[in-house]
Amino acid sequence: MNSTIEIISNPPREQWEELLKRPAMDSDYLDQAVEDIFFAVKRNGDQALKDFTRTFDGVQLTTLEVPAREIDAAEQQVSPALQQAIRTAAANIGKFHAAQKCEPVMLETSPGVRCWQKAVPLQRVGLYIPGGSAPLFSSVLMLAVPARIAGCREIILCTPPSKDGKVNPAILFAAKISGVTRVFTVGGAQAIAAMAFGTETIPAVNKIFGPGNQFVTAAKQSVQKLGVAIDLPAGPSEVLVMADETANATFVASDLLSQAEHGADSQVILLTTSRELAKETVMQMQQQMVQLPRRDIIEQSLQSCKIIVMDSVAEMVDMVNDYAPEHLIISMTNTGKVAEAIVNAGSVFLGNYTPESAGDYASGTNHTLPTNGFAKAYSGVNLDSFVRKITFQEITPAGLKGLGETLQQMAEAENLQAHKLAVSVRLAAL
Amino acid sequence: MNSTIEIISNPPREQWEELLKRPAMDSDYLDQAVEDIFFAVKRNGDQALKDFTRTFDGVQLTTLEVPAREIDAAEQQVSPALQQAIRTAAANIGKFHAAQKCEPVMLETSPGVRCWQKAVPLQRVGLYIPGGSAPLFSSVLMLAVPARIAGCREIILCTPPSKDGKVNPAILFAAKISGVTRVFTVGGAQAIAAMAFGTETIPAVNKIFGPGNQFVTAAKQSVQKLGVAIDLPAGPSEVLVMADETANATFVASDLLSQAEHGADSQVILLTTSRELAKETVMQMQQQMVQLPRRDIIEQSLQSCKIIVMDSVAEMVDMVNDYAPEHLIISMTNTGKVAEAIVNAGSVFLGNYTPESAGDYASGTNHTLPTNGFAKAYSGVNLDSFVRKITFQEITPAGLKGLGETLQQMAEAENLQAHKLAVSVRLAAL
Repeated sequence: MNSTIEIISNPPREQWEELLKRPAMDSDYLDQAVEDIFFAVKRNGDQALKDFTRTFDGVQLTTLEVPAREIDAAEQQVSPALQQAIRTAAANIGKFHAAQKCEPVMLETSPGVRCWQKAVPLQRVGLYIPGGSAPLFSSVLMLAVPARIAGCREIILCTPPSKDGKVNPAILFAAKISGVTRVFTVGGAQAIAAMAFGTETIPAVNKIFGPGNQFVTAAKQSVQKLGVAIDLPAGPSEVLVMADETANATFVASDLLSQAEHGADSQVILLTTSRELAKETVMQMQQQMVQLPRRDIIEQSLQSCKIIVMDSVAEMVDMVNDYAPEHLIISMTNTGKVAEAIVNAGSVFLGNYTPESAGDYASGTNHTLPTNGFAKAYSGVNLDSFVRKITFQEITPAGLKGLGETLQQMAEAENLQAHKLAVSVRLAAL
Repeated sequence: MNSTIEIISNPPREQWEELLKRPAMDSDYLDQAVEDIFFAVKRNGDQALKDFTRTFDGVQLTTLEVPAREIDAAEQQVSPALQQAIRTAAANIGKFHAAQKCEPVMLETSPGVRCWQKAVPLQRVGLYIPGGSAPLFSSVLMLAVPARIAGCREIILCTPPSKDGKVNPAILFAAKISGVTRVFTVGGAQAIAAMAFGTETIPAVNKIFGPGNQFVTAAKQSVQKLGVAIDLPAGPSEVLVMADETANATFVASDLLSQAEHGADSQVILLTTSRELAKETVMQMQQQMVQLPRRDIIEQSLQSCKIIVMDSVAEMVDMVNDYAPEHLIISMTNTGKVAEAIVNAGSVFLGNYTPESAGDYASGTNHTLPTNGFAKAYSGVNLDSFVRKITFQEITPAGLKGLGETLQQMAEAENLQAHKLAVSVRLAAL
């Protein structure tokens, strides 16, 4: 493995872009497949969902919804230790997102002109949770807990069934304790279509959240064009670690590996002022890897891993802000000061005892974060993702008198005479 | 005109959807044109922008940027009365958006586990302001003032040049006082391409805001797919007025007309408990129209106008929440109570002396709002639109000890052993 990870020293600024280039994502070739699936779901509803589930998941479903008694019974199939862990995580996620509630904004902008802004929950949201070997119950918590705290009335969840037509009990347990109202055994682009357009069984939602494979990603992009909101544009997961000589190579190596195990396309970067630490981290990664079951994935991912030694901390900060990593770990002497200079990142982990795993699972911050440089424009999922901020205003007759000249001047100058008239007929009545 | 506006009484619920159906928007046929423009701008940069400006705007530009002295000089071409109006509007918009600032959220979710969330301004935003007969300087204020208050470092503005190659002085004046840093005379899909990809002169931005024609709308949809954020999906403007017998038909008529004058595709709806008011409003609209210069547009728009009489206020509220209007005016006895029941709307105007014009221009609320039912999923532009909320966390050794078992249980159950290892190597060191 050593041979594939080169240590790069002080790359000149003009090479940064090329050096940290992410793999291009292209979903265009999926668009036709997704469009066909959308067409079928719009036309045949539930039947189309069952047909696709037979074809893609190899499961013949009679019903699409998981009955409440099955959700309740899931608890018994989850070990008490895991139940406790899930409850602890849900509690911390709940605390952090509840703290994000804002009081309504209310003020008189001019005498008699009262304006306010109120957060109103999305009425119905849809969560997508992928299937596969690992049950991503942590993503259920990260999406459903804030949705419940925001006050969303309906929180539905779609996830592909296992071969036996069931849903993993840990997913059902997490769904239950975090406030999911209905669970459906549908996956892939057909699940996104169902939540966007609605079928006989699955209601159409206002916004769709959650990770997924390339079909799910392409389907989410497509529904967005139709006015159904989505959480975030998707891309491969990434971590960038900033470290100096005070960092612990064993810890840094484990953080890089934990990102690498997500998938072959995961992006893993170490930026350090210490050549010593760089070398030791590579060695540590090699040692730790041997015991890891997802070693194959890790090895593929590490082929694009970058380990960069830089003399200037200021330049390191610039490079991080250029790259805008999804996850940023800072293990340096002046961790707090460096963190303050970060303007583009999804979530930041400070110090030697704050592994990304903490935010992935249970510290309370959200793990649904902007990848692919999208942190320059997007926030990760947070309480705002589940509300709209609606504005209100009420103007007294005196208030309108005060503002009337301003409104009429502006309407006149924009050639909108009816806008002016709406003011002048009122002023005339006073 | 009377003949085209039918008054509909108590339509049964199953007819609501059809009754309030918006015109379908289809930008697919524009996609090829937009793609060609994108390709040319990516390849030829500034030269492509000049070529398109010659072709589409009939103007041969030598430079793309409006010089600072020209922006400064614009003030002299704007009447003192309009200057004052623009300053008053900017001040109110500033107050309302400044009040939306949130303190950073910071808490200990578990002992030793400190998590916080901080709003960080977008570094560079791009505003698009359409050209045409009316200079939309009000949109400059609505976008640039919150961007400045959020703390965006660069606020660039693109707008197509007039025939003489210049920009309307009211737009330049509004840009100057609201904090725009650079102005470029480029319009259409090519302006969106320039702000998304960057050219020699125009820098690439993180997020693009502002209204535009169908090409601009299609271009914004396309760049969104490439990871450049946009403010909102676009659709025709709309107003829904809820009124009872206490409303003033003259005022209501002027509000409906002021929406109708925006464009032939504007959506104009009156919901009222009073057949009397409905009839009088129609009469008033007819009278007021004759004096309005944009009468042709208004007549076209009113062909899809709906006037609906309903006996039940509760049903009216349901209908409004189903429709999710961009602008909602409530002129009723219990205005405040009705407003509290509204969960889907862009911006709400309460009482007889609160015309939509107030929010369009100068009360302080934003006029960039979700149309086309998007209010079910999207907020209008607000301070949040110009920031990202980045999360941070710092865990003490004791904090990690406390949370360690939870993290390891969850990582193990999701088959992510390296995630578990990142915790266990740290716990082993304690």
